[in-house]
Amino acid sequence: MAEQGRRRYLGAVDLGGSKILSVVADEEGRILGEDRRPTGASEGPEVGLERIATSLEAALAGAGLRRDDLRAVGVCSPGPIDPARGVIPEAPNLPGWHDVPVCQYLGDRLGVPAILENDATAAAYGEFVYGAGRGCRHIVYITLSTGIGGGLVLDGRLYRGATGAAGEIGHITIDADGPLCGCGKPGHVEALASGRAIAREAEGVLARGGSPLLARLAEEDGELTAATVHRAADAGDPEARRILQRAGYYLGIGLAAYVDVFNPEVIIIGGGLRHIRDLYLGPAEQEMRRRAMAESLRVVRLVEAGLGDYSGVMGVVALLREGPATA
Amino acid sequence: MAEQGRRRYLGAVDLGGSKILSVVADEEGRILGEDRRPTGASEGPEVGLERIATSLEAALAGAGLRRDDLRAVGVCSPGPIDPARGVIPEAPNLPGWHDVPVCQYLGDRLGVPAILENDATAAAYGEFVYGAGRGCRHIVYITLSTGIGGGLVLDGRLYRGATGAAGEIGHITIDADGPLCGCGKPGHVEALASGRAIAREAEGVLARGGSPLLARLAEEDGELTAATVHRAADAGDPEARRILQRAGYYLGIGLAAYVDVFNPEVIIIGGGLRHIRDLYLGPAEQEMRRRAMAESLRVVRLVEAGLGDYSGVMGVVALLREGPATA
Repeated sequence: MAEQGRRRYLGAVDLGGSKILSVVADEEGRILGEDRRPTGASEGPEVGLERIATSLEAALAGAGLRRDDLRAVGVCSPGPIDPARGVIPEAPNLPGWHDVPVCQYLGDRLGVPAILENDATAAAYGEFVYGAGRGCRHIVYITLSTGIGGGLVLDGRLYRGATGAAGEIGHITIDADGPLCGCGKPGHVEALASGRAIAREAEGVLARGGSPLLARLAEEDGELTAATVHRAADAGDPEARRILQRAGYYLGIGLAAYVDVFNPEVIIIGGGLRHIRDLYLGPAEQEMRRRAMAESLRVVRLVEAGLGDYSGVMGVVALLREGPATA
Repeated sequence: MAEQGRRRYLGAVDLGGSKILSVVADEEGRILGEDRRPTGASEGPEVGLERIATSLEAALAGAGLRRDDLRAVGVCSPGPIDPARGVIPEAPNLPGWHDVPVCQYLGDRLGVPAILENDATAAAYGEFVYGAGRGCRHIVYITLSTGIGGGLVLDGRLYRGATGAAGEIGHITIDADGPLCGCGKPGHVEALASGRAIAREAEGVLARGGSPLLARLAEEDGELTAATVHRAADAGDPEARRILQRAGYYLGIGLAAYVDVFNPEVIIIGGGLRHIRDLYLGPAEQEMRRRAMAESLRVVRLVEAGLGDYSGVMGVVALLREGPATA
């Protein structure tokens, strides 16, 4: 593609429920500027879209660039998206976001073409092009956070499925009559192995008066999350350790399914829970190796995301670099 | 590819545990001759390979063709295969088959290049090119038989994974502490929804003295299989009906996982159990629709294999037509 004047930089945004991360990168994927700010989800989509644009402009300014240096921009966000229309139909973690025309808004506001992608799908592609999946052709990417999302690179190409909804690997059933998932269905991996599942187990322990340390840390934090449980476990709390190991066990059952179905070279773990190694990822890998088929286990590696929090934005950069972005 | 003299016909074999199906087809996928004979699995791999060659020659003769009309041949067989070396390392349903050099044998014996493929993978491709998946780009193929196998066509291409072991969709865990699968691991779809699972449930019923009709039919058949249970259910036996519905329920949990992960346009059902519609596939589809995500359910169709018993051989024909077959 010929360069059109100065327009050779790419803007990418990871739109989360609580924060926005924006970067400006060159065609080689080097980050030249970045910006982080709160999403302000409660203020509604108009404010949110404006914040995305402002964040991109701040990243541009940080790189010493101007708006007309941009060739294209892209956004990745959790949950279902409509990439063809560039619309977020419904955002599970952004209350009040219904049919939000992200691409049209950014296109009009910044005067460049814009794309929209699911965040886990983008992260899988980012890791494939720039991260822990370089050199691999078959990649399962999992983000372990409040929920569990997935993205797939199969035969060296991003796999989106028939309508862009593929890779919902947090929503496979591993316990037919298990607890309800956030999506309302029983026994999903997400309902048994996610940050939300860990927090729910911990709430159960507190309700039974089970762990004074966990109770104190939750009091200090003002909330009870997987991070609280992790801190309690690190301090040696046996209930907290048991909760993490149990979640890891269920994660491993899901991982075994991904191994058997995709026969991947690598499973890349992203998301905040990737840091809980010994007490969560350790049991998960152990259970995966106990359950999956030998032939596929022979080749697969379980690794941490190479780009950390940047998997998603770098995936958007890679997509912008390669694909025709339509305004 | 230029035609070399007369050598423009393709030979394809579906090697099963009990029978061999061979066809000879032209480049357009028209079957010109075919042969069926018992595998004679107990007689060992030398006899088996010789039978495959003889069966191909019989199919050739039936088409009024000679050995030097063949351009290439291919075999599909269940279980893991080594397509690069053309070797069956281990055949779960062919006792005594270890490291059997199928391609080398057929190449030497028939003087043509030969390929080897997993049977469910081949069947998926056959349905994609010639069968119920024509016009689709995202296909999950499932064979429901004694065991449960799968093949994948993703983004319009056969997906084999890193080492050709992808698509083992019968071996995902849907009940963490469920009954042991034939592969030795607990709670797989195959352990709860396959022909073997149906037969095992029926054995339990007979052991409890549960169904006189089922007992009589098993006595008549000399064995107790899913077909026996199907006959009893058709005759109105409540226990047999319950067994099939229960297997269908578990199959549906697996189907929901495939829908969420692959977001396919179509799930194609092959194998002998595809004929048990109301009492097995019906409950399966119902449970799939209860569990999978709305976005993916909106597009997916559940259909019967269009090629019946010929899915596998036609997949081999399609692969031979397109790919470079190496001797």
